[in-house]
Amino acid sequence: MKITSVQNDRVKYWNSLKEKKNRDRDRRFLVEGDHLINEAKKQNLIVETISMVDETADYYVTKEIMEKISGQKSISYNAAVVRFIPEDSITGKTIILDNIQDPANLGVIIRSCIAFGFNNIVLSDTSVDLYNPKVIRATEGMIFHINVLRRNLKEFIPILKNLGYKIVGTDVLSGEDVRNIKIDDMAIVMGNEGQGLSDDVKKMCDQFVYIKMNKTCESLNVAVAASILMYEVSHE
Amino acid sequence: MKITSVQNDRVKYWNSLKEKKNRDRDRRFLVEGDHLINEAKKQNLIVETISMVDETADYYVTKEIMEKISGQKSISYNAAVVRFIPEDSITGKTIILDNIQDPANLGVIIRSCIAFGFNNIVLSDTSVDLYNPKVIRATEGMIFHINVLRRNLKEFIPILKNLGYKIVGTDVLSGEDVRNIKIDDMAIVMGNEGQGLSDDVKKMCDQFVYIKMNKTCESLNVAVAASILMYEVSHE
Repeated sequence: MKITSVQNDRVKYWNSLKEKKNRDRDRRFLVEGDHLINEAKKQNLIVETISMVDETADYYVTKEIMEKISGQKSISYNAAVVRFIPEDSITGKTIILDNIQDPANLGVIIRSCIAFGFNNIVLSDTSVDLYNPKVIRATEGMIFHINVLRRNLKEFIPILKNLGYKIVGTDVLSGEDVRNIKIDDMAIVMGNEGQGLSDDVKKMCDQFVYIKMNKTCESLNVAVAASILMYEVSHE
Repeated sequence: MKITSVQNDRVKYWNSLKEKKNRDRDRRFLVEGDHLINEAKKQNLIVETISMVDETADYYVTKEIMEKISGQKSISYNAAVVRFIPEDSITGKTIILDNIQDPANLGVIIRSCIAFGFNNIVLSDTSVDLYNPKVIRATEGMIFHINVLRRNLKEFIPILKNLGYKIVGTDVLSGEDVRNIKIDDMAIVMGNEGQGLSDDVKKMCDQFVYIKMNKTCESLNVAVAASILMYEVSHE
């Protein structure tokens, strides 16, 4: 179907998916660019395709429409409405994110999870939305390869412990060098960009690790720290 | 001095420092927040202080003025005009950044450099500006602890080689696992977010390394990759 008016209801709907409440209501989100569309297609999650260059797309639209629905400065020629990625049960290596706020950090962590064999992310219900367009972009398509559960951590960490997971937090003062530890079935917890781990979550940790570094630098970026920990743990 | 009008010439000047050409002309930039101001003070780089809460600052201004000159959503109470950080000669571990574009990536790499004992960054003249406010924020104050040179890499890499540096690039196909290498006086080169290393720079590399990872993930975020390489090299 051809659409030429930015006032069209379908265009308004696509544009509404920029907001979390609308994405959550329909359990759908918008992806832009061929790479993400192809990854979504592989997982059978495409609802409808939108294009300004391909007349065979479900909706063939103008550049102005693409500009309206896009969250990027340089727009893509193609986009798609995609269903939320279904949750899976938790097996294998897991990372827990306690109140991560920066969308690029979450996206980068997702990318590193795939690189280092982490299958699951447990995202605190206080964290940035998984389907935030900036998160999706930063994952470089890897969002479709990981199992993400959004949960209340105080309630869910005990469930992980029952599954046999050791909860491993980061602590520069009381921890062990991550290079020297070896734990099977661990779930690494990373805290908020400014405040680190919340007290409630800290209390639930079974062990603490640190990344050896220069004292001038108070802390690493959280996506860097998470990636180094996952990298170390993947070397067994 | 008290300023209450957003039309004041001083306010216009501060606001003009959001643009690279104006920063370069005066070799000055604006920092926001006590942490960055304190770090700049330690290096004797402060030109003038601006505050909406402290009457003893060089300029005591209104909230509206602070909002105008700030690049952040939630403004700081204090800001300062700061001189460009003077260049130093190159000794010790060095990272070369070939056409890095994302300001957060550059900021995060600077933070990791300090963490892992890298003293110098050689930034290609095609890269994002060091004094871009988003870079500065992402460094978390670490910008004042590193020696950054902005250079034409084709001209400068030969100079590094003459200083005795081995140029180490990243290449997933032909490289060696970074875990297994040990090179003194190395300069690690990281490429652009989308395209990787430019051909010219690639030709100048003495050796290639890779980070062992899952093949599903085509590549890591450049700040994560740089950080893991520096982390590995710091373990000697």
